[in-house]
Amino acid sequence: MSGNTQIVHDAPAGLEGVVVAATSIGDVNGAKGFYHYRGYNAVELAAELTYEQVWYLLHNGQLPSAAQLAGFRDQTASLRVLPEAVESVLPLLRADDSVPLLSQLRSAISVVGAALGWIPWLGTSPDERAKQALQAVSITPLLIAGLVRGEDVSAGAPEFGIVGDFLARLGMAVTPEQTRALEQYLITTIDHGFNASTFAARVVTSTGADLGAALTAAIGALSGPLHGGAPSLALTMLEEIVTAGRAESWVQQKLDSGERIMGFGHRVYRGTDPRADFLREVAMKLGSPRAQLALEVEEVILASLARHRPGRVLATNVEYWAAVVMESVGLSPDLFTPAFTMSRMVGWTAHVAEQMAANKLIRPSSRYVGPVDRPIPVGA
Amino acid sequence: MSGNTQIVHDAPAGLEGVVVAATSIGDVNGAKGFYHYRGYNAVELAAELTYEQVWYLLHNGQLPSAAQLAGFRDQTASLRVLPEAVESVLPLLRADDSVPLLSQLRSAISVVGAALGWIPWLGTSPDERAKQALQAVSITPLLIAGLVRGEDVSAGAPEFGIVGDFLARLGMAVTPEQTRALEQYLITTIDHGFNASTFAARVVTSTGADLGAALTAAIGALSGPLHGGAPSLALTMLEEIVTAGRAESWVQQKLDSGERIMGFGHRVYRGTDPRADFLREVAMKLGSPRAQLALEVEEVILASLARHRPGRVLATNVEYWAAVVMESVGLSPDLFTPAFTMSRMVGWTAHVAEQMAANKLIRPSSRYVGPVDRPIPVGA
Repeated sequence: MSGNTQIVHDAPAGLEGVVVAATSIGDVNGAKGFYHYRGYNAVELAAELTYEQVWYLLHNGQLPSAAQLAGFRDQTASLRVLPEAVESVLPLLRADDSVPLLSQLRSAISVVGAALGWIPWLGTSPDERAKQALQAVSITPLLIAGLVRGEDVSAGAPEFGIVGDFLARLGMAVTPEQTRALEQYLITTIDHGFNASTFAARVVTSTGADLGAALTAAIGALSGPLHGGAPSLALTMLEEIVTAGRAESWVQQKLDSGERIMGFGHRVYRGTDPRADFLREVAMKLGSPRAQLALEVEEVILASLARHRPGRVLATNVEYWAAVVMESVGLSPDLFTPAFTMSRMVGWTAHVAEQMAANKLIRPSSRYVGPVDRPIPVGA
Repeated sequence: MSGNTQIVHDAPAGLEGVVVAATSIGDVNGAKGFYHYRGYNAVELAAELTYEQVWYLLHNGQLPSAAQLAGFRDQTASLRVLPEAVESVLPLLRADDSVPLLSQLRSAISVVGAALGWIPWLGTSPDERAKQALQAVSITPLLIAGLVRGEDVSAGAPEFGIVGDFLARLGMAVTPEQTRALEQYLITTIDHGFNASTFAARVVTSTGADLGAALTAAIGALSGPLHGGAPSLALTMLEEIVTAGRAESWVQQKLDSGERIMGFGHRVYRGTDPRADFLREVAMKLGSPRAQLALEVEEVILASLARHRPGRVLATNVEYWAAVVMESVGLSPDLFTPAFTMSRMVGWTAHVAEQMAANKLIRPSSRYVGPVDRPIPVGA
């Protein structure tokens, strides 16, 4: 943050374009179709490195040496333990199937924070804070698996990284290629600028509140459809197109009636979304029949969009190919957003740590526009 | 919000002085020592009206007629019901006494939201949203009482307003004067500008997330010591002074060693804090021996502060007299911040409704200041 202390009046709605903090975690360049973590191209990280290497990078600012990585894998594997108090609460949280899994996950992480004795961070040591950050990331897949299965998920696979262990706890038998594909998807979604959930986590952290409070707020924000989105809707669309028989007329009808095509266009990326381009490759490498269908439909949709709005580039966004990758790995659609939470947890904890390191209470102003100087009526 | 859409670079740290939204809920004028709700002097509201009248005002923008008030009292009384799923979870949340009650309350409100089937608000009707807002406020005292007592608190006092009912569910036998004093304290703390918890609730709401997500974030923010504070520390200080015997030397010693005196000075109010002035009256009217002691100690502290920092006005803030009032009502110190949550819940739900009515995703920017263009090392 610069030393600029002038009063800024009437920031744009949604704080669009307002720089609220300096960060060294990552950046998004929408015009160039590029984003990075700690200065490394995020898509290249996903192509070349393991989840634990990138997680270490996010939390430490540097890639690990071989010895550091081995220690990190051991340490984080040992943190994959649910407190007893949480094990007894989890089955009660999943009572109602009408409630999205993310609402239950929000409660679960809140309970975890209390059960692990996380207190307001201002009163804790840097070592304790660093451990809590690793704990939060490590435990999230257990919470998801426990909520989904409604049974004991304590038997993990310590020999695996966190992603393979997650699939094992879900009781899924997958190929190494599928595990790697999910790992690559998750790496691409660890961080993406000062989105609403990341910002919510930093606002809550700025009050000195505990990590559980910050992460609960972040999951809450991610559960909003304007932020976390709904990657499963891309699959619904593919189903509809298969049923309709002909992609082109289906798309044309949607466009004619002014409906949005799920999985296309992005607020930040004006051209292609680098995550979509990479995940297309990942999906095609897995080579499911669905991936082939998705590729053909994508081509039709892009051509239709180009005809419909000649002046505007509407490219495929991350949700479209994320859905195809996750389905090809064998995840059910209700697990798509929770899995996204799992990776974003790495980014959120990095941002929380950065906020703690140079904290100032985040407390903006508002402009009052209602009635003034109203006297209380006699006899009210 | 004005139509101003210019790019604002480098907002001041903590967004200090940055106007992020237009609001018609209330305003704080620190220089004049004045704050209001919907244009009515907040302290006058607390002096003259009931909690339900002010709550109605916050949610509807107008004071209720006699008939509207009667209907509102009936409606909100009927909403004081815990879902069964929550009743079974509550005892499990209070397992660990080392965790602040506010962390448990955060989990409880998260569970309530899911148990009541609250889904992302974008998919709900205005009627449903208004009902949820009343439900959230109505249920909070039950959650607090349930967490504190660890037993069934379903037997309420429907003939009372929400504050009297709260004390009844806590199992406390109090005088009408004590109930009224607590009601007056709670009215004074319903809203106070775009503080961190209110802002967190609006950030989360802006994503389209459900009310439970927004309120969970708000409670999390309030649990931070830089925001929710620690009114109970003012009592600790009084105890220390009683033990030390002489207030003046105790205060002088604190000031000489550079320590902060709890309950004095405020970020926004340069002169007196209108809430402190009003709550002093409320406490003195209750007339406990503690209130008399607090008055004498306050005088000594103010005189010492004036001598210590001649150029600066350091007045008594809301926490000092809030603690005395709550203690005089019979609340134990661990209930002070949860009670504060109960009143702020009225303000938060009003702000959430306002955000929903003219929503735009809150997504600021950041400035990347770390290393760039780092190539991934061969063999990493």
